[in-house]
Amino acid sequence: MKLLDIFAKLKGDINQIERELERSVTFDDELLSEASLHLLKAGGKRLRPVFVLLSGKFGHYNLDVLKKIAVPLELIHMSSLVHDDVIDDAATRRGQQTVKSKWDNRVAMYTGDYIFGKALTIATELNNPFIHQMLSKALVQMSIGEMEQIRDFFNTKQSIRNYLLRIRRKTALLIAISCQLGAAAADADRQTVNRLYRYGYNVGMAYQIRDDLLDLFGTEKQIGKPPGSDIRQGNITLPVILALKDDNVRDPLLKEIDNIMKSNGTADTSAAIKMIKASSGIELADRLANRYIEKALHALEGLPSIGAKKNLIDIAYFTGKRNY
Amino acid sequence: MKLLDIFAKLKGDINQIERELERSVTFDDELLSEASLHLLKAGGKRLRPVFVLLSGKFGHYNLDVLKKIAVPLELIHMSSLVHDDVIDDAATRRGQQTVKSKWDNRVAMYTGDYIFGKALTIATELNNPFIHQMLSKALVQMSIGEMEQIRDFFNTKQSIRNYLLRIRRKTALLIAISCQLGAAAADADRQTVNRLYRYGYNVGMAYQIRDDLLDLFGTEKQIGKPPGSDIRQGNITLPVILALKDDNVRDPLLKEIDNIMKSNGTADTSAAIKMIKASSGIELADRLANRYIEKALHALEGLPSIGAKKNLIDIAYFTGKRNY
Repeated sequence: MKLLDIFAKLKGDINQIERELERSVTFDDELLSEASLHLLKAGGKRLRPVFVLLSGKFGHYNLDVLKKIAVPLELIHMSSLVHDDVIDDAATRRGQQTVKSKWDNRVAMYTGDYIFGKALTIATELNNPFIHQMLSKALVQMSIGEMEQIRDFFNTKQSIRNYLLRIRRKTALLIAISCQLGAAAADADRQTVNRLYRYGYNVGMAYQIRDDLLDLFGTEKQIGKPPGSDIRQGNITLPVILALKDDNVRDPLLKEIDNIMKSNGTADTSAAIKMIKASSGIELADRLANRYIEKALHALEGLPSIGAKKNLIDIAYFTGKRNY
Repeated sequence: MKLLDIFAKLKGDINQIERELERSVTFDDELLSEASLHLLKAGGKRLRPVFVLLSGKFGHYNLDVLKKIAVPLELIHMSSLVHDDVIDDAATRRGQQTVKSKWDNRVAMYTGDYIFGKALTIATELNNPFIHQMLSKALVQMSIGEMEQIRDFFNTKQSIRNYLLRIRRKTALLIAISCQLGAAAADADRQTVNRLYRYGYNVGMAYQIRDDLLDLFGTEKQIGKPPGSDIRQGNITLPVILALKDDNVRDPLLKEIDNIMKSNGTADTSAAIKMIKASSGIELADRLANRYIEKALHALEGLPSIGAKKNLIDIAYFTGKRNY
């Protein structure tokens, strides 16, 4: 089964969520709606809603309830992307791209705040304080993760543990919560909820490691932006940390990263990427991603053999191999 | 009784809230804590906590419960201030002040997001979905208000209604909710909760109108920044809208505002301020602020004659005359 087939099966429900997403940001203010809809229409894999729905299959599946989890989670994800844009704007300022006007930055910031608020408004319609608590805790962790990422820009001394903690906060937690809250909102038993949380967490970790590998070795067509964006911005990811532990590469790579930093975003990163490719970092990062996939699969083991379980297994495999 | 006396009476409880505020942002990440504590220590009148506590006196006053309302509301207020800073940063760029580094902007944005999340985490400790709902709705309204403010920069055709809607969202709503949720968390009856909401709303409207008058006519010492900051930034406030309706002033003032806009923030605003001062706008704005104060006092009428009621009356009077 392909990933697309999983999505095809859920298509009706995903379409409903899509409409809810649009509706949720449509009525308040013209500029906010425009900016938000623009974002929504730019698409995205709607991975978080898919995890909510599949996890909901392990309890009493009720789309009217589940969409009040799925929509907020996708909105929170989007809102963090818009705020990233404000930051990326700052980054591309250092490069050759057109400087976005301040107006755009403001719109991006308040659009993020607005979508964030909307997400919470929808989630709080469910009179379930546990859900509200988990969401607000995730928000705190996500902003800590974002701040850590900024703080560690061009920090070539950071440890693997640093990196893992950061992507846990930035990415894995929200995916874990998508699974957890989907199951919880469907009144699945506690063990099931916990298993799905663990599944989501591990898939999320693998997903982000893959994402960071892709940023270095994907083609511009695959990743929708020039490769090497992370390192150009100063974001030192796992393959780089691992390459820096490889004695054959360490010194020239450090020098190259220093050049990239000094170039203020204008540097060609291909030399650095070549060095990382030649190091043992890739294989080690790959192996770590696979280990998370194995853990994700392991977390599913005790669950009943329903179609959704098969789908979650497929998603885990695809995440392990993803090059999209 | 002076405003300070009211605060003196609540001092013990306010101190506890102060400590909770500090604790709430202390443990997660060094940079976030530093930025947040810096903000907290910069002070502020802690008006929202005061409203929460005073409103709580109309029910079963329990500081342990009330602080889970007071702390989040103050944090939400602070978080909106930090995000304003990101914007103000953009504004002062146009002026002569030092351009803040991008690092500061990023830190400001994520610090705002973080404080925001923290606020929700504390509020959701109270298992009261009504409170969660009111808070998330307020957040949405606040971000709409902020966006409207940006959109209406230098819009000299905006109506009084526009302005009132905007300050309702930007300021009045959060003060209204401080009173409402303080009373609700103390299990006051519904009529009392509604009365306090109305009180807070009207005090909030008067407060913002006074604030906008002060920005034009206060001294730098009174308001902590050079007068005319609003108009320099393009923020067209009530006295300006009203002055533009005065035939004696309209045309030269329009021309002056156009100059300010074209100067990109470097203009001397004293000529514009002088014109506004000479118009009928000041008196009319003053009168409107007083009308809101009267409404606020009226909303309190049915409430029992306890000390807190006297305090709220005093705060309303002070707001009506405020020059701090």
